[in-house]
Amino acid sequence: MPYFDAASAAPLHPVARQALLAALDEGWADPARLYREGRRARLLLDAAREAAAEAVGCRPDELVFTPSGTRALHDGIAGALAGRRRVGRHLVVSAVEHSAVLHSADALRAAGGTVTEVAVDRTGRVDAAAYARELREDTALAVLQSANHEVGTEQPVAEVAEACRAAGVPLLVDAAQSLGWGPVAPGWSLLTASAHKWGGPSGVGLLAVRKGVRFAAQHPADERESGRSPGFPDLPAVVAAAASLRAVRAEAAAEDARLRALVERVRSRVPELVPDVEVVGDPVRRLPHLVTFSCLYVDGETLLHALDREGFSVSSGSSCTSSTLRPSHVLQAMGVLSEGNVRLSLPRGTSEEDVESFLGVLPGVVASVREALGAPAASAAAAPAGAEEEELVVDSLGKRCPIPVIELAKVIGDVPVGGLVTVLSDDEAARLDIPAWCAMRGQEYVGERAAPAGVAYTVRRRA
Amino acid sequence: MPYFDAASAAPLHPVARQALLAALDEGWADPARLYREGRRARLLLDAAREAAAEAVGCRPDELVFTPSGTRALHDGIAGALAGRRRVGRHLVVSAVEHSAVLHSADALRAAGGTVTEVAVDRTGRVDAAAYARELREDTALAVLQSANHEVGTEQPVAEVAEACRAAGVPLLVDAAQSLGWGPVAPGWSLLTASAHKWGGPSGVGLLAVRKGVRFAAQHPADERESGRSPGFPDLPAVVAAAASLRAVRAEAAAEDARLRALVERVRSRVPELVPDVEVVGDPVRRLPHLVTFSCLYVDGETLLHALDREGFSVSSGSSCTSSTLRPSHVLQAMGVLSEGNVRLSLPRGTSEEDVESFLGVLPGVVASVREALGAPAASAAAAPAGAEEEELVVDSLGKRCPIPVIELAKVIGDVPVGGLVTVLSDDEAARLDIPAWCAMRGQEYVGERAAPAGVAYTVRRRA
Repeated sequence: MPYFDAASAAPLHPVARQALLAALDEGWADPARLYREGRRARLLLDAAREAAAEAVGCRPDELVFTPSGTRALHDGIAGALAGRRRVGRHLVVSAVEHSAVLHSADALRAAGGTVTEVAVDRTGRVDAAAYARELREDTALAVLQSANHEVGTEQPVAEVAEACRAAGVPLLVDAAQSLGWGPVAPGWSLLTASAHKWGGPSGVGLLAVRKGVRFAAQHPADERESGRSPGFPDLPAVVAAAASLRAVRAEAAAEDARLRALVERVRSRVPELVPDVEVVGDPVRRLPHLVTFSCLYVDGETLLHALDREGFSVSSGSSCTSSTLRPSHVLQAMGVLSEGNVRLSLPRGTSEEDVESFLGVLPGVVASVREALGAPAASAAAAPAGAEEEELVVDSLGKRCPIPVIELAKVIGDVPVGGLVTVLSDDEAARLDIPAWCAMRGQEYVGERAAPAGVAYTVRRRA
Repeated sequence: MPYFDAASAAPLHPVARQALLAALDEGWADPARLYREGRRARLLLDAAREAAAEAVGCRPDELVFTPSGTRALHDGIAGALAGRRRVGRHLVVSAVEHSAVLHSADALRAAGGTVTEVAVDRTGRVDAAAYARELREDTALAVLQSANHEVGTEQPVAEVAEACRAAGVPLLVDAAQSLGWGPVAPGWSLLTASAHKWGGPSGVGLLAVRKGVRFAAQHPADERESGRSPGFPDLPAVVAAAASLRAVRAEAAAEDARLRALVERVRSRVPELVPDVEVVGDPVRRLPHLVTFSCLYVDGETLLHALDREGFSVSSGSSCTSSTLRPSHVLQAMGVLSEGNVRLSLPRGTSEEDVESFLGVLPGVVASVREALGAPAASAAAAPAGAEEEELVVDSLGKRCPIPVIELAKVIGDVPVGGLVTVLSDDEAARLDIPAWCAMRGQEYVGERAAPAGVAYTVRRRA
């Protein structure tokens, strides 16, 4: 049963399991105590910290263990901002950071600070020069992910780090998706990661703060973890996290090459096998194991359920799969299609057979979802015909993604080349998906305007 | 090798271990995902929440899992205070709460709020009427532990809850030490606990917030755990925590009776076996498994190491065993002796033989520590003699606990009954231990005054 959602949570690595079992017996006591069980726990904690620090590329005393990657980001950003409170209260982030970063930015705004979100291109990558231009006198902190969690695109960390160094601004790198594959380019001031993304257990995040970086922890005082992560440490999980990080690093080069080739196969084969698909994210500067594509005229939730019935576990950034009914902020920032979105993130050890089996099943699944939704055939919009001159209006109010796009595609053939179609929609995903459909189909997206109900999106037929 | 520090961390219960192993296989995926691994994780999470809620005595949707008891207290107190920000910024706590509560109180003070610490008697118990008198119009929150973690004394939770209800103030009960033994008396508004105190794994705390209690989480937004505990849940640990809570509750009545009798044996036998010992904490209204005593003329760290060499793992609230060189704030608030302090907290399953073996070893260990320190013999101070009239001054500057008390005990025989001895000391523990020594030895503690170096503590010989 192929599981393709390692970017959410990777299955436990055998080394992690083994280390966790051993540490359940040896590492349950309080490492701050003087008796033998405590001393044994302290030795395990120290060894785990040394191993993790070596993999991160920092000193052991610069690294603390947190209860999750999210807490590492929350506590790391809050501590770094507070440490530079006197410099200012301006934060720079990319528009495609993890929600834990964007929610920390919201908290700063609510407390009176300011935030600049640096835009990304259609591959999801920030421009280092554009990022550098946002660094100001009063910038307390800059945050950039090493690679994007939804589309796999690598960010220009080294260049941004150099710009931050020149501007005297500390850079926090969120390395959650990449740390298992290799160290982050040097130049960062703070670094965060999450063990269950590399095959470690849940319950462990990393927060590294370079010596000399101003940092003022924002939670109540606590003696644990250099005062940077309160609470009794989950030592068995920490031991398992460190051991598995070392193990996955040892296998990283070989597994990178293997999975990179499998992902390349998905990137090239999916558009051949399935009509009206957009593969998103940088094709080269990317994580080895992650690929994302979106299918026109497909409802993401139905697609996920259909793939699940076929035995494939994947994730989606489509609006219908989120509790807020908004498409993923990453796809939104990239300006790419969000309907029928699928993210595959291959765990280590994924076989060629599993990927081939997915490629074998996908076309039929997409076709059946489209058929159930009454989507136009792949070639339907390609047949021009003479028709009336006036603007055609499609009322899709109250209908959810991908119905507005399907209805647009069904009528585009009814207007002459050069004619206009306007879609009325109150679904947030339409704002992203109608322009994306135009780009994919060679039609012209004219623009949007407020309507008495919902928003009117206007398209001019060009093809 | 008897381990007597369950109040720090109890060894993993077999049911916890079994549940954790099963959940490593079944519960590693993201419970928020729609595919089968996610649905399976969600079922485990829901079942764990139901089991834990039943043991707590609340609805499942009132309970969230946190990464530790400390984080449950930090986040619970911050959220409850913020939820009643408009009422006021006054917090009431007892003087003997866990440091996570007192550090949260410090954070409130630093942010401009006010805190009242309710005093305790010599057994460590707050007076419910005195607690009630501190509730004010602007009191946002009251906090009280169910039982003390250092001396085992139970607090009058039901009476304080009734007073809080009458005053319209929510009460947070820290049930970390007692939840494995039974539910907290009704009437609380918020409740916290920590799994590794009852034999669950580390990495899991509980935070329950009754419906209708105003609560505003203070960390950045996060969809997990009803927005009250950010980050990917440590599901295997959560499953193990819930399963073991159910298991220890099933054994609680029998184990309570058994351990209560063993603790009673320690309480009565230690003063018979070892001279100059003070057993502290309420003898009746107490946790079943915990007993604390202090030995005059004994250095806590040396005693711990000596007991460790004999194979016994215990904890201590003596100043020399803390990183700050201050005696435990609990012993300080109780006004009892802190030197040579030993806390035994018996894990479930502790045998009578282990306790007898401890009682067999303790007298010799204490005697050898005393001998090495040159402490007076047990009867030394009891022999009065005629001597000069003037005040005797003992210079103990630069010497650490228990040396100042030992030097006092050595010279008390040199002054006539009614005469004065003054001890100069710059050790914080002397402030607690010199009055405590006077109470134990039937001498009169006259008082303290600032001296050119350190503090002068004056004692009048009465016996």
